[in-house]
Amino acid sequence: MTVNETSESLRETAITAAVAGGQETLKWFRQKMGVENKAGGSGFDPVTAADRACEKVIREYIQAQFPDHAIRGEEFDDVGSGEWTWLIDPIDGTRAFISGFVHWGVLLGLLHNEQPHLGVMVQPFLGEVFVGDGESASYMHDGKSIAMHTRETQNLEDATFATTDPRLFKKWDDEKILEAIESQVRLVRYGTDCYQYAMVALGQLDLVVENVLKPWDILPLVPIVRGAGGTITNWQGGDDLSEGQVIASANETLHQDVLARIRQS
Amino acid sequence: MTVNETSESLRETAITAAVAGGQETLKWFRQKMGVENKAGGSGFDPVTAADRACEKVIREYIQAQFPDHAIRGEEFDDVGSGEWTWLIDPIDGTRAFISGFVHWGVLLGLLHNEQPHLGVMVQPFLGEVFVGDGESASYMHDGKSIAMHTRETQNLEDATFATTDPRLFKKWDDEKILEAIESQVRLVRYGTDCYQYAMVALGQLDLVVENVLKPWDILPLVPIVRGAGGTITNWQGGDDLSEGQVIASANETLHQDVLARIRQS
Repeated sequence: MTVNETSESLRETAITAAVAGGQETLKWFRQKMGVENKAGGSGFDPVTAADRACEKVIREYIQAQFPDHAIRGEEFDDVGSGEWTWLIDPIDGTRAFISGFVHWGVLLGLLHNEQPHLGVMVQPFLGEVFVGDGESASYMHDGKSIAMHTRETQNLEDATFATTDPRLFKKWDDEKILEAIESQVRLVRYGTDCYQYAMVALGQLDLVVENVLKPWDILPLVPIVRGAGGTITNWQGGDDLSEGQVIASANETLHQDVLARIRQS
Repeated sequence: MTVNETSESLRETAITAAVAGGQETLKWFRQKMGVENKAGGSGFDPVTAADRACEKVIREYIQAQFPDHAIRGEEFDDVGSGEWTWLIDPIDGTRAFISGFVHWGVLLGLLHNEQPHLGVMVQPFLGEVFVGDGESASYMHDGKSIAMHTRETQNLEDATFATTDPRLFKKWDDEKILEAIESQVRLVRYGTDCYQYAMVALGQLDLVVENVLKPWDILPLVPIVRGAGGTITNWQGGDDLSEGQVIASANETLHQDVLARIRQS
């Protein structure tokens, strides 16, 4: 690690870039806006000018601070290669965003040799920043910063659960998995995108299970959840999240219970 | 109407009471808190001290301003009777509330001879107030107040749609209705409780369809949606919402299209 890549300088860059990106999104949030259809007519995958404006600001800030780092984002081409790679999801939860809801966020992650190293999630309309490095995690809001700690819920029956869209389990033939979880938990929430992982980190929610995430949807959130004490793996309990199947639990005990139920389903 | 019951004095009372109630809820939001099980073991219907503290503050304020008015709330006994009745849902979206999410709100409605006359929804964590009287509606945030206007979307295929929980349609044998809507719309959101009606009023969302609402869940929202230009009826197109089946649309043209699709399903 060079002098320029101290934990502090990386963290400051990540927060500053994500907050600046978030400010861009607010120029479009709840305004009248055109919505492109990225999927070209089949389905509805909204992309807005807000996505691009946000990602552009983040890229420019990172490039100015760390010109040698690689950058991958949802909206523009990959640049660079090497030890350090920034990953941008300018607006995670675009459907929420274009409907005026607030469970969306700007995600910025940093990979070190392809492993999640640092993550930031910003909810600009609420002025919230969630940041973590796998060792610790903080929540910043209203001028205050507090350490985040996950819950101690030990088993599925006592757990509260969220997932973005139950129809994705049906679509990908994963209904049994969802049923195994939903039939046992204490509470179910839908429609929550990145915000649900932040709520696990903040100690408000116990469990998230999802099945078709892209790397930029989830890797920036990994150091936040882990830093707050949570466990996040694929459905087999491994660290490789490239298949897009993710379990995020408040703690390791709950996580093992969830993995066991999934194996049985 | 007496001098004490001018539109302005009713509106001011409603806003002041709901905002004060909202401040109470923040003492519990995202704090560690006990959660009672109102349903006594069967199912999970969370009630918190926040609900009661909020409703108490609202009741006291209304009683001081309008001692002759009736009050009905979710948490305490009905009081009074007569021409004017206040209806309180101290926290609509309790499941969201206890999971740290923000799509919940404090609802306060005023009925005149049992008909929706005035409504306020407050989201205290975001500092948002939505208010309407069936003729007009306003959104207050960040020190500003703007008039709300619904969208002009004309048919179901162009509409964005939200409902709180698709499992409620399955539970009550209304799956065909949900399927008739979801198979046509441009976008589907879940988990949105009262907040989705506010987004219809704010011109961010086109359509909400729900099936098991209580009077206090929906009547305070009616003057807000209608005041912004929206249409809100039961599933047959009538004004009686006591069966809990509700359609809220951005405008009358879209509403007629939705009613026709439901009749065909």
